[in-house]
Amino acid sequence: MAWYEGAFFYQIFPDRFFRAGPPGRPAPAGPFEPWEAPPTLRGFKGGTLWGVAEKLPYLLDLGVEAIYLNPVFASTANHRYHTVDYFQVDPILGGNEALRHLLEVAHAHGVRVILDGVFNHTGRGFFAFQHLLENGEQSPYQDWYYVKGFPLKAYTAHPNYEAWWGNPELPKLKVETPAVREYLLAVAEHWIRFGIDGWRLDVPNEIQDPEFWRAFRQRVKGANPEAYIVGEIWEEADFWLQGDMFDAVMNYPLARAVLGFVGGEALDRDLAAQTGLGRIEPLQALAFSHRLEDLFGRYRPEVVRAQMNLLTSHDTPRLLSLMRGSVERARLALALLFLLPGNPTVYYGEEVGMAGGKDPENRGGMVWEEARWQKDLLETVKRLARLRKEHPALRTAPYLRVYAQDGHLAFARGPYLVVVNASPHPFRQDFPLHGVFP
Amino acid sequence: MAWYEGAFFYQIFPDRFFRAGPPGRPAPAGPFEPWEAPPTLRGFKGGTLWGVAEKLPYLLDLGVEAIYLNPVFASTANHRYHTVDYFQVDPILGGNEALRHLLEVAHAHGVRVILDGVFNHTGRGFFAFQHLLENGEQSPYQDWYYVKGFPLKAYTAHPNYEAWWGNPELPKLKVETPAVREYLLAVAEHWIRFGIDGWRLDVPNEIQDPEFWRAFRQRVKGANPEAYIVGEIWEEADFWLQGDMFDAVMNYPLARAVLGFVGGEALDRDLAAQTGLGRIEPLQALAFSHRLEDLFGRYRPEVVRAQMNLLTSHDTPRLLSLMRGSVERARLALALLFLLPGNPTVYYGEEVGMAGGKDPENRGGMVWEEARWQKDLLETVKRLARLRKEHPALRTAPYLRVYAQDGHLAFARGPYLVVVNASPHPFRQDFPLHGVFP
Repeated sequence: MAWYEGAFFYQIFPDRFFRAGPPGRPAPAGPFEPWEAPPTLRGFKGGTLWGVAEKLPYLLDLGVEAIYLNPVFASTANHRYHTVDYFQVDPILGGNEALRHLLEVAHAHGVRVILDGVFNHTGRGFFAFQHLLENGEQSPYQDWYYVKGFPLKAYTAHPNYEAWWGNPELPKLKVETPAVREYLLAVAEHWIRFGIDGWRLDVPNEIQDPEFWRAFRQRVKGANPEAYIVGEIWEEADFWLQGDMFDAVMNYPLARAVLGFVGGEALDRDLAAQTGLGRIEPLQALAFSHRLEDLFGRYRPEVVRAQMNLLTSHDTPRLLSLMRGSVERARLALALLFLLPGNPTVYYGEEVGMAGGKDPENRGGMVWEEARWQKDLLETVKRLARLRKEHPALRTAPYLRVYAQDGHLAFARGPYLVVVNASPHPFRQDFPLHGVFP
Repeated sequence: MAWYEGAFFYQIFPDRFFRAGPPGRPAPAGPFEPWEAPPTLRGFKGGTLWGVAEKLPYLLDLGVEAIYLNPVFASTANHRYHTVDYFQVDPILGGNEALRHLLEVAHAHGVRVILDGVFNHTGRGFFAFQHLLENGEQSPYQDWYYVKGFPLKAYTAHPNYEAWWGNPELPKLKVETPAVREYLLAVAEHWIRFGIDGWRLDVPNEIQDPEFWRAFRQRVKGANPEAYIVGEIWEEADFWLQGDMFDAVMNYPLARAVLGFVGGEALDRDLAAQTGLGRIEPLQALAFSHRLEDLFGRYRPEVVRAQMNLLTSHDTPRLLSLMRGSVERARLALALLFLLPGNPTVYYGEEVGMAGGKDPENRGGMVWEEARWQKDLLETVKRLARLRKEHPALRTAPYLRVYAQDGHLAFARGPYLVVVNASPHPFRQDFPLHGVFP
């Protein structure tokens, strides 16, 4: 079984996790926004990869087995999705040296690290784009983008080149150009050889070229057959999960189902609808189970075991805000996340009950004051992580519905029975278990 | 005596010297301008450092002892003075790998290589500038430039930040900011440790901070005490040549004197005046000698021996054009260049009689068809270079005037007598040599 089947992932937004310098040296001076201040769209808090490494004991105590880092390459944006240099970790994060250090300490404790690969577009500060901007038709980079006219109009609302959602800050790369293709594949391979354990791929559906993704898989798995490739696909992803492209996708359909079942009428559906989660249907147990059965049935078992199951991310409101502050519901959602097949993936701070609406509110500075933690949630996550470690069947066994009615669900995972009461009331029921446990 | 005292330097404008790929592999495809086409301000011909290395036999045959490369770091300009990344050789030139290769083959033949350091300003594509452009006051790079207001207006004729000669493409770095200072010093040291043999410094007088240059010298000489530091100062440079900053400067005053003496009334003074050479006075032998005596007398002897003596560069018209096509005068000017104290520095193609006015005409693709070479000039340069190698006194001995009248000059260099007739007519004279040769 691959390391990434059933692993507990922890997602970190690097600018916001922990600010520290290299061991024994000070953190970068900034100036940065105050850590506790409400996050802003353009502000920097100065978190570093040195800081992530320094907090590894916290993650180990939590039970984390793998870290998914939001983008780390040099970028003009605090989220670093506007890539400026694919071969350099952002200097504010500590540069390549800090990533090297993080990989060393993480691997020494058996923790894997995957990076966020943004290959559909670059930032407008990217070298080839700047070259084209300055030299127009005389630039040898003229085939790197989808240019509709020269000179480029990059600092207006209406760019004359293809850009992600028309955003002039994010010119779309022309992946069909052999030099671009080779450049991106070289990036993918370079970082695998550097030591990362896989790639989370940003908006891969926008690169409508399965041959590119097949070549991508070959380069990555050629460099490390154990590397994990997980795509950001917000819907069902059969096309990508045939075995020739991705190992898994970010399982937003599962997130919607869990939120709809656990959150029910209490869920802040309007808030969810302002993000990629869309309009979430409240689900009763049976509908929820049907949704799960569909998700677990449509992919091969190794894909189901490797799916990046999540409740929230940097692209959604935070769990506690979706649950309108209900720690109980948040706890139940997290419990389900850890007890279903796939990789439970926790967005930094979710485990201590950080709140926050849509971007930028969902990207606050990690709360490190224990007095501000929701200790219940934190203990739940630790206990669930321990449970998975102690009972490997929770990673491997398929989902089997035993009982589902109203807000009440029972399902088996191998020799274990999970019983969930998502209603606001106590509930008592005898389950018919004949045939469930052989 | 330092290696750089009296060495024969050859200046190469990398985009225009020779296009080649790594040994046994093809050159980059471009698209590029045709090699033979008139050069343009924004066009690329695709010369590479692989190409420079491939042409090393040509340079060795010429007698070259050191190469001065115009900028090689990643840049959006064909001349690469608009730096985008100080730690990466431009990918079009072949990247860091190509510089590594060039250094290896050059050093294997005893040829030194110095790079062009552009530290006063960056290109507007430079990471910190792009960061500031995108994030304004929220960028931690706000102290990297002299910003007069946010948002930055970088793509207008009137930038709201200090820029080199007001050119918005070249924002001026704030060297007084400790992080900037340390960044630049780290760049200087990095490439010395990488293996380069020194730095030619672009517009160093615009960084009006002698402490910066003193620190620069310490970092560079600390990494390699034999490194050569030569500043681009167009006038007398006493301030910079006290021993605590530069080893030498580009000797444009000497260029003006030689051109004024050899070119006389034939010199295209209007053409010269359109460049940094300014209005060149025609000089008779005595005035020329006085000018030389002043230049050789005002600096310490080791500085005089290390001066980068040149006739032309990428910033001036080409020699043959200044001489209005007179190969004889060009040859005489080159002879003087090689027979005076200091480092004779030949701008690529000068030795084969390439012509060209001001930028971009002076930056044509190197002529490699022997049929188009001025063989006279080429043979003269080879002979002069051999002469200097065979007679080391030509590197070390001071200049001593013996005779100077009208267009006729005789001077001694140690045991040798140099006699020059810059007039258009034959001339015969007995020189009084008593006291000249002890």
